[in-house]
Amino acid sequence: MRTDPRGTDPRTLGTATGGETVPTVPPAATAVRRTTVDVTALLERGRTLATPVLRAAIDRLAPPMDTVAAYHFGWIDAQGNPADGDGGKAVRPALAVLSAEVTGAAPETGIPGAVAVELVHNFSLLHDDLMDGDEQRRHRDTVWKVHGPAQAILVGDALFALANEVLLELGTVEAGRATRRLTRASRALIDGQAQDISYEHRDRVSVEECLEMEGNKTGALLASASSIGAVLGGADERTADMLEKYGYHLGLAFQAVDDLLGIWGDPEATGKQTWSDLRQRKKSLPVVAALAAGGPASERLGEMLAADAKSSDFENFSEAEFAARAALIEEAGGREWTAEEARRQHTIAIEALDAVDMPDQVRDRFAALADFVVVRKR
Amino acid sequence: MRTDPRGTDPRTLGTATGGETVPTVPPAATAVRRTTVDVTALLERGRTLATPVLRAAIDRLAPPMDTVAAYHFGWIDAQGNPADGDGGKAVRPALAVLSAEVTGAAPETGIPGAVAVELVHNFSLLHDDLMDGDEQRRHRDTVWKVHGPAQAILVGDALFALANEVLLELGTVEAGRATRRLTRASRALIDGQAQDISYEHRDRVSVEECLEMEGNKTGALLASASSIGAVLGGADERTADMLEKYGYHLGLAFQAVDDLLGIWGDPEATGKQTWSDLRQRKKSLPVVAALAAGGPASERLGEMLAADAKSSDFENFSEAEFAARAALIEEAGGREWTAEEARRQHTIAIEALDAVDMPDQVRDRFAALADFVVVRKR
Repeated sequence: MRTDPRGTDPRTLGTATGGETVPTVPPAATAVRRTTVDVTALLERGRTLATPVLRAAIDRLAPPMDTVAAYHFGWIDAQGNPADGDGGKAVRPALAVLSAEVTGAAPETGIPGAVAVELVHNFSLLHDDLMDGDEQRRHRDTVWKVHGPAQAILVGDALFALANEVLLELGTVEAGRATRRLTRASRALIDGQAQDISYEHRDRVSVEECLEMEGNKTGALLASASSIGAVLGGADERTADMLEKYGYHLGLAFQAVDDLLGIWGDPEATGKQTWSDLRQRKKSLPVVAALAAGGPASERLGEMLAADAKSSDFENFSEAEFAARAALIEEAGGREWTAEEARRQHTIAIEALDAVDMPDQVRDRFAALADFVVVRKR
Repeated sequence: MRTDPRGTDPRTLGTATGGETVPTVPPAATAVRRTTVDVTALLERGRTLATPVLRAAIDRLAPPMDTVAAYHFGWIDAQGNPADGDGGKAVRPALAVLSAEVTGAAPETGIPGAVAVELVHNFSLLHDDLMDGDEQRRHRDTVWKVHGPAQAILVGDALFALANEVLLELGTVEAGRATRRLTRASRALIDGQAQDISYEHRDRVSVEECLEMEGNKTGALLASASSIGAVLGGADERTADMLEKYGYHLGLAFQAVDDLLGIWGDPEATGKQTWSDLRQRKKSLPVVAALAAGGPASERLGEMLAADAKSSDFENFSEAEFAARAALIEEAGGREWTAEEARRQHTIAIEALDAVDMPDQVRDRFAALADFVVVRKR
């Protein structure tokens, strides 16, 4: 009999969070109100406010680190010519400036927080790409590929230090509190990467372990992004904690969607190969949930992946072979469970918001960003 | 005619700082008073106060990072058995707890600062050893050799984050100020490593460039160590700045002595090979000063090193060949200039101390530590 990987039948869990059947659509009750929020404008606002300050911070780096960092951010190409790279979705800066408004402060109050969070995020990308041997990021060669491993280490270190510098030079008590919280998130990020690396060498990873790792790698920094502006605006500890809770679960929802896109995403939208995570043998949520589910499809998948791990021909697998694995994951319930998990985490995030006193307009915007994260296609 | 690499005749400089002829002995006038200071006990105090707190901080790291860090610090061997490794001279913790006493606070006030500085120092060692490809440190295989490059990156990152965590969880305004200063020093450390790497690819490095790099790599963190306890004890900005100045120039003196030991040190005392820095083609102070001095020996040295850089046989050079290069460096004045530079920096450090109001006993101890750094044999 099929059992839920977390010890609860997924159908019950589905019911508990509202029994929705289309997992990536937000709960209907509140979504109506949120349709008035222009998410694109919200993301654009975060980007517009944060980018000049981020650029000014990068300009402080000693050569050649400033150039290497500018390449990483997509502002120049490998030859040093100006470029207009894909800066990503910019969810974090949008959250950081929005969170300042929780306390009634201007969005600008959140800018140093937005910049610090982006610096920490990019520090981790630089180091993780090197550790994981990833050669491509945002459709371009990674820094270690272009500028060598030493520069990837060095510039990552510099961005990490710069993150604290940008906050602490504000010289306020609030900046000290914000840095302390960001430091805790940075440690979680590092823990998550350590877990990710150790899981690679293991045959089996439990759903709990996978969620813990994703909470560290994605949840912790979105928690920072969602609260740092408020902390800089003088929010009390409880408010900051609840905003962190919103961001943490938003991060888990984000990652669940990412894991779905990593297998079933449209290559044109994601910019990744088909079956991307399967090609990388990533033990993502759909995979670990399918393996933990039990039943014939789950067992067949387990045997297949065990054989793949020893196969010398894996690099030459055809589309059909990956499609077969994806079908088994779906048949074992891994896809459905992960979509449901995204909803569960989305619901917890929204509930955390409701526990914080803030202007309605700000709450709607937070909720709309959460909806965006769950319904996005890339 | 031989000219001083910094544009001043070294004999004049020697006279300016007291005209001493034995460069590694401190000025006689104050040394008498300092003989009452037990430097060994002072170093032991710093070590004894800081080590348990450092160990507790490392214990917070998630596995396997705690083990990797414990190996790096010499607390366990590569197999995980308890070890009693060489923890180094422990000058930094001694300075940090001593600096707390400047403000009249107990030495214990400086402990979180001592631990944070040690964490930053070891973060940089972990990353630098990997970037530089160094296989040995403190007579043992480096972390990347034993545990792989990913662990060296990851644990370095974790130590860096932990440094800020240890300070910021104090939750005081002083801790925020201390973290800000430490962050600035960390960035200098990273700048110094960037310079070190870029100099490797160049034929010539000026004395100024070498001093700037050494100020970043060694001076900045000794500046932090010398002031962080005082900052935690509530010292004003000027006091902190002057203590940083003491530490920065102490660091330059320290590095000048290190550069002398790297060529002429007794292998039994240093634990390094004979002519260690020459074997690594290090552009250290004696080398760059000799090359900049001009004159027949300087020119001959320049030709030899240029030929060495292209030589495929460099790895098999005999003792006599390195001895010949060391003799040329000495003949060109590089050894004498560096010894004089150590004295100059020592003098500036002592003068900075004199500009700070502090108990006589504390001042004597700072001065004694400065003397120790300059006269040490390892």
